[in-house]
Amino acid sequence: MSKSITRADLEALDRADPVRAFRNRFTLPEGVIYLDGNSLGAMPSATPNRVTEVVEAEWGRDLIRSWNIHGWIDIQKRIGAKIGRLIGAEEGETIVADSTSVNLFKMLSAALELRPDRRVIISERSNFPTDLYIAEGLIRQLKLGHGLRLVEADDIDGTIGDDVAVVMLTHVNYRTGRMHDMQRITELAHARGAIMLWDLAHSAGAVPVNVTSANVDFAVGCGYKYLNGGPGAPAFLYVARRHQAGITPVLSGWLGHASPFTFEPSYRPGEGIERLAVGAPPILSLTALEVGVDLMLEASIDALRTKSVAQTSVFDALVEQEIGHDVLSLVTPSAPEMRGSQLCYSYGDAWPVMRALIDRGVIGDFRAPDILRFGFTPLYVGFAELWDAVAILKNILADGTWDRPEYHARAKVT
Amino acid sequence: MSKSITRADLEALDRADPVRAFRNRFTLPEGVIYLDGNSLGAMPSATPNRVTEVVEAEWGRDLIRSWNIHGWIDIQKRIGAKIGRLIGAEEGETIVADSTSVNLFKMLSAALELRPDRRVIISERSNFPTDLYIAEGLIRQLKLGHGLRLVEADDIDGTIGDDVAVVMLTHVNYRTGRMHDMQRITELAHARGAIMLWDLAHSAGAVPVNVTSANVDFAVGCGYKYLNGGPGAPAFLYVARRHQAGITPVLSGWLGHASPFTFEPSYRPGEGIERLAVGAPPILSLTALEVGVDLMLEASIDALRTKSVAQTSVFDALVEQEIGHDVLSLVTPSAPEMRGSQLCYSYGDAWPVMRALIDRGVIGDFRAPDILRFGFTPLYVGFAELWDAVAILKNILADGTWDRPEYHARAKVT
Repeated sequence: MSKSITRADLEALDRADPVRAFRNRFTLPEGVIYLDGNSLGAMPSATPNRVTEVVEAEWGRDLIRSWNIHGWIDIQKRIGAKIGRLIGAEEGETIVADSTSVNLFKMLSAALELRPDRRVIISERSNFPTDLYIAEGLIRQLKLGHGLRLVEADDIDGTIGDDVAVVMLTHVNYRTGRMHDMQRITELAHARGAIMLWDLAHSAGAVPVNVTSANVDFAVGCGYKYLNGGPGAPAFLYVARRHQAGITPVLSGWLGHASPFTFEPSYRPGEGIERLAVGAPPILSLTALEVGVDLMLEASIDALRTKSVAQTSVFDALVEQEIGHDVLSLVTPSAPEMRGSQLCYSYGDAWPVMRALIDRGVIGDFRAPDILRFGFTPLYVGFAELWDAVAILKNILADGTWDRPEYHARAKVT
Repeated sequence: MSKSITRADLEALDRADPVRAFRNRFTLPEGVIYLDGNSLGAMPSATPNRVTEVVEAEWGRDLIRSWNIHGWIDIQKRIGAKIGRLIGAEEGETIVADSTSVNLFKMLSAALELRPDRRVIISERSNFPTDLYIAEGLIRQLKLGHGLRLVEADDIDGTIGDDVAVVMLTHVNYRTGRMHDMQRITELAHARGAIMLWDLAHSAGAVPVNVTSANVDFAVGCGYKYLNGGPGAPAFLYVARRHQAGITPVLSGWLGHASPFTFEPSYRPGEGIERLAVGAPPILSLTALEVGVDLMLEASIDALRTKSVAQTSVFDALVEQEIGHDVLSLVTPSAPEMRGSQLCYSYGDAWPVMRALIDRGVIGDFRAPDILRFGFTPLYVGFAELWDAVAILKNILADGTWDRPEYHARAKVT
């Protein structure tokens, strides 16, 4: 029998953790173990002052002049370029704009335009629903007989035929945490003549990504998860430079125009990635996003990934040791290289168990119908906390406190 | 010869102004006369604390739980309902979402779906460009042979034939300040079988609007102008209840789903106006918007309109008295009932004159090619300030200081 893991072992890991100092750059409430940074990232301590500065000094004092003197007009490209560095894009290939859903619509529209003779969009049946809903909406609108072909993760290879216009996948699955091989699937899509669109919602800031070396065509991603950009932070998109000139944006708004302030009557797309901008961007939310992205850029994504793999591995080992996989069945791949920075367990009463956990200060989340989901954000989660989280979960399961009526009551947002 | 207007006359108007107290609810920099609230509204004094509260206590402390406990999930409908009261909508007919441009795309798409046998979108040649660009993008995407028919304001009546699917007009023109008769044109559009879509960007919070009595089908509008919602604040849209069930949104994102958190694989639209939501909304920017809207709801729009008409009238009378309409030619209709809350003058060297004015603390804006634009926001602009603004403008024109090289240099944002 192998030696059991002790809390002291985890405290030792904390002491040896090279990225531990980043924890002090976040403000988290006392008594909370936050394992939900994959749903809403924690607040960087620098954010409140920076947001106040923009509200009071830029908006309140400099008013409309701030579009020029504080660079509001460039903020979408500026933050976009910073996120680009996190995903291996080159300067001018990324921009922050709108929501992930709206960006998916832009990129799917562009992909179908680039493959006018093909009628199939491939995606994964368990993809995050908005990706599928947006594809449905576009197909319904175009009325050209496009189809959305939904497949299981293991069946993707065999389904990319020469009728496929675009393969749209989320790199790390929101529900299972399973991570696709971006390079391999992109190559496969290209070999069959399809456009490859990756949703990096659970990847950017969580796992190493290099859209350039993987030769990705389009990507979208989220600002409020691992990038710690604040609730509903604007999203980003990536368009490989080789495609930019060929895209006439479907959402052809004035800020994507080549010359927005000459107020020309007809649309002319901006030179590069800026053509994917649409309307005036929400400056206050973008300000918070930039603080989160700047902080992430100080860290090494490889160091974060090393810690993330250690955290998911040790958490699952603790679940096995303290609770047992016969009780909590691991849904996430057990091989670390096949998963992102999260672990999911299926449990029949996952909803009340998660409510009880949150009540005890361990914040993860529930994903329908029966998933306990835990996100690991190495910038601000320590190892000893993982011991405590599993100990609390063990107690809740053992003493049956999760079965109280108040924990069964459903909330609007899960 | 009529008696001239004196500064003392305007001081008397300030003393008698029933909405004067609202000025103290805004924070404006010393030495600035702000006549650009139609481009970016001023900052309510309550905004910084409220935004800090949401950043620190809702995001930082309550984290993901805030979607339920602080009602983030309802914020789009909640603020939407408040804006609805400003435009005469009924509960459940308005929602805050995305940008004006994106909302125009949603509403134009829906209008064309409702009139599948018609192929013409009517708009005004001098409409704000993004409205036209968005229509162009949709037409290009659909490839169904739709056309955008651009007409002059005076020619609208004669051009709404039975081939017209939708009439899309901005109620108050961004460049001339001319205001359309909403009721009359909506009736006319309906008489010809067309859908009526109003852009209220320069109307909401500026002039009385009643979409219910005018029987409007769809409307969109802006949060960062007269609603004082902050830079790039999210926009709103209105859908008359009679149309809601018939709209399957083109941007069918997860937050418009009937049950977003059951993560169903197929899209089912939400029951009412909520189906027009798309992705996660930017909470910090929405927070600031709500402060601005709440403040506006305390005022009487009729009292604001009375003051606005008095302000535009007295400002133009001062321009005539001090400078002369032979020098500054009024582009805005001279009849108050035909204009919104702004005045525009054409002047060959409008650009350097506006730069010089801004340098002297009078902030209006330039609109290409030759427009000096002044917005009047009765909540926080006083009458005596108008005297001072015209006096400064007179001096700049008289002493030629506007002709300095630094005022001719172009900025990125005008």
